[in-house]
Amino acid sequence: MTTMNEGTANGIGAELTHEEIFAAHEGGKLTAAVTAPLDSARDLSIAYTPGVAQVSRAIASDPALADRYTWTQRLVAVVSDGSAVLGLGDIGPKASLPVMEGKSALFKTFAGLDSIPLVLDTNDVDEIVETLVRLRPSFGAVNLEDISAPRCFELERRVTEALDCPVMHDDQHGTAVVVLAALRNAARVSGRELGSLKVVISGAGAAGVACAKILHTAGVGEIIVLDSRGVISADRDGLTPIKQELTEFTNPRGISGGPAEAMRGADVFIGVSIGQVPEEQVASMAPDSIIFALSNPDPEIHPEIAGKYAAVVATGRSDFPNQINNVLAFPGIFKGALDAGARRITDGMKVAAAEAIAAVAADDLSADYIVPSPLDPRVAPEVSAAVAKAARAEGVATA
Amino acid sequence: MTTMNEGTANGIGAELTHEEIFAAHEGGKLTAAVTAPLDSARDLSIAYTPGVAQVSRAIASDPALADRYTWTQRLVAVVSDGSAVLGLGDIGPKASLPVMEGKSALFKTFAGLDSIPLVLDTNDVDEIVETLVRLRPSFGAVNLEDISAPRCFELERRVTEALDCPVMHDDQHGTAVVVLAALRNAARVSGRELGSLKVVISGAGAAGVACAKILHTAGVGEIIVLDSRGVISADRDGLTPIKQELTEFTNPRGISGGPAEAMRGADVFIGVSIGQVPEEQVASMAPDSIIFALSNPDPEIHPEIAGKYAAVVATGRSDFPNQINNVLAFPGIFKGALDAGARRITDGMKVAAAEAIAAVAADDLSADYIVPSPLDPRVAPEVSAAVAKAARAEGVATA
Repeated sequence: MTTMNEGTANGIGAELTHEEIFAAHEGGKLTAAVTAPLDSARDLSIAYTPGVAQVSRAIASDPALADRYTWTQRLVAVVSDGSAVLGLGDIGPKASLPVMEGKSALFKTFAGLDSIPLVLDTNDVDEIVETLVRLRPSFGAVNLEDISAPRCFELERRVTEALDCPVMHDDQHGTAVVVLAALRNAARVSGRELGSLKVVISGAGAAGVACAKILHTAGVGEIIVLDSRGVISADRDGLTPIKQELTEFTNPRGISGGPAEAMRGADVFIGVSIGQVPEEQVASMAPDSIIFALSNPDPEIHPEIAGKYAAVVATGRSDFPNQINNVLAFPGIFKGALDAGARRITDGMKVAAAEAIAAVAADDLSADYIVPSPLDPRVAPEVSAAVAKAARAEGVATA
Repeated sequence: MTTMNEGTANGIGAELTHEEIFAAHEGGKLTAAVTAPLDSARDLSIAYTPGVAQVSRAIASDPALADRYTWTQRLVAVVSDGSAVLGLGDIGPKASLPVMEGKSALFKTFAGLDSIPLVLDTNDVDEIVETLVRLRPSFGAVNLEDISAPRCFELERRVTEALDCPVMHDDQHGTAVVVLAALRNAARVSGRELGSLKVVISGAGAAGVACAKILHTAGVGEIIVLDSRGVISADRDGLTPIKQELTEFTNPRGISGGPAEAMRGADVFIGVSIGQVPEEQVASMAPDSIIFALSNPDPEIHPEIAGKYAAVVATGRSDFPNQINNVLAFPGIFKGALDAGARRITDGMKVAAAEAIAAVAADDLSADYIVPSPLDPRVAPEVSAAVAKAARAEGVATA
């Protein structure tokens, strides 16, 4: 059973067994709880009729009071159609639920936010947007999750436009924020500046596109993105709109070709696909390269191979140093956005989150420690504070 | 401030103050919680990647496993558009949220069910049905709440048809179930049979219509329903479809006129409107009548007046004997339906719930004790067991 080996390989102690995993999921991982007991007729009269009518009347007069007297201001809807779940692909909304419950559990554990999974039995972008617009008064923010590319790009844009609350597709930006944090520290460790780096991103799905965008925003010098057909360049036919957009700020030297052409002389490789990279391409990179091979469970470049050439290596796995894990980002990003009453999550807020993650690791920086542990309790509060500050600085905050 | 007086009048100890009510609502009344802590890398690997993938894969192969490995099988969505909230009317979804959170808190407190408020920014029946169909994989049952008549009748019918899970509009059936339970015991106390009773229902909104239906199902002899224009009878013009339906089994003597004509000689008065009833009409009822004056905070007939003529008097208030409170019904009904994996909530399940509520009070029956206290912990388990049994007997159970 491969999972047994995965368990051991992930460095989490004894192997994970099928029985252990299913036992932990029995009855689900989430529950709704009351914030105060309803033990007496008096409690009932306050929480329900007749007392509650006063609170409803107050919100009817001043809708902003809903933020104060309901749970919505700390409530994140984790929304998915189950079309791109982990490595499983399009397994549908029902089968995606354990993942969404897990996500909600992470929101609670790391940022104290309440969260409910809302899985949708439709893949239609119009219908998903429409559904969330109708449900808008029910929550405070939307975490889009495990939605397939390229629909995820249009969906996130349209939900963001339609709702006056924080919206983020975590498969894009959670990964991108942590990658930026890690790259910032990897550059420091290897004595370079972001602006001087030549970066190759392998994969133009949700994570690849978002990585390209945030690295560009953060001032990375040169970015080349590879998809299954090779280097994304303006002279290619039939590019999707999002890839067309990439050509506006990537591949400045206008190279064409495949991974071999892209990798030659590159300072940084960021793998967010499932394609394996041959060792000769790794060897063709610039000296003291930086390699983030994030595919799970099989990194695009095995850390032992990468280590022969690179100054810094990161993966998505917990059994190697430098695990790039979204949980470093999304709890604090949403907490900060909600704390600030932000009406959206801006690029500046994402960059601020990356800086905060990088800063937590800054004092003990080494080639094997460019990002904090996913369990580091300092991270979410630091990210949250930085994001709220950025929201206020950018004028999207209301609190 | 009227609410102070209401507080005292409701017999819950010292008066409820504005400050106390708002303090209790600060931050909302609900929270999401994890069922097990995520304290270690191992916990994360089980609840999220990579472990969770095994559970998602299993559900993808056998969707029925979602009932076992997610929270949906005990999750009730409390759904409202905020169009008929308590005595406040159409205050909209946002202002209705404190009521829906209260309802969710009652589900948890009395039946241990998880529950989330989903309030919708649309009053359109088509759109509400469509939204719930899209969200279907997210929950296990739907409690429709505070939706205005006559839309509530069509909405409940259509949601029930569209979803393969328990659906109930509580303002209709929660009230009706408790009224039937109370009437069953009131008849026992006064030595009569349901089949011999002449019943007048004042009000043809959500509660009035559902009371008429369940009393008819339970075998009540004669039912007359009053709306603002008087007795609902087949010879009236412009009846809504639901009132047309009422003419098929109410008013068997074909009387016409207003409350005075209806009340003369009636054994039972059930008030679910806000219209006050003059004392001379109360006096015109049959001897030893039964009066349920359920309007809050001002009963249609004050209990002191009712007591001059009636053998049994009930209200919706906690400061008089025999409080007719929905909380006796809905937690156990949904718990029983979910426990049985019921695909719908049938009339038989509702009648079984009423019998169970009545039975809890049966041993100590008196004119002042025809229903249990809303806080009686015996009620929800008894109702739940009776409803699950009825679901199995009626062939709608799957578990």
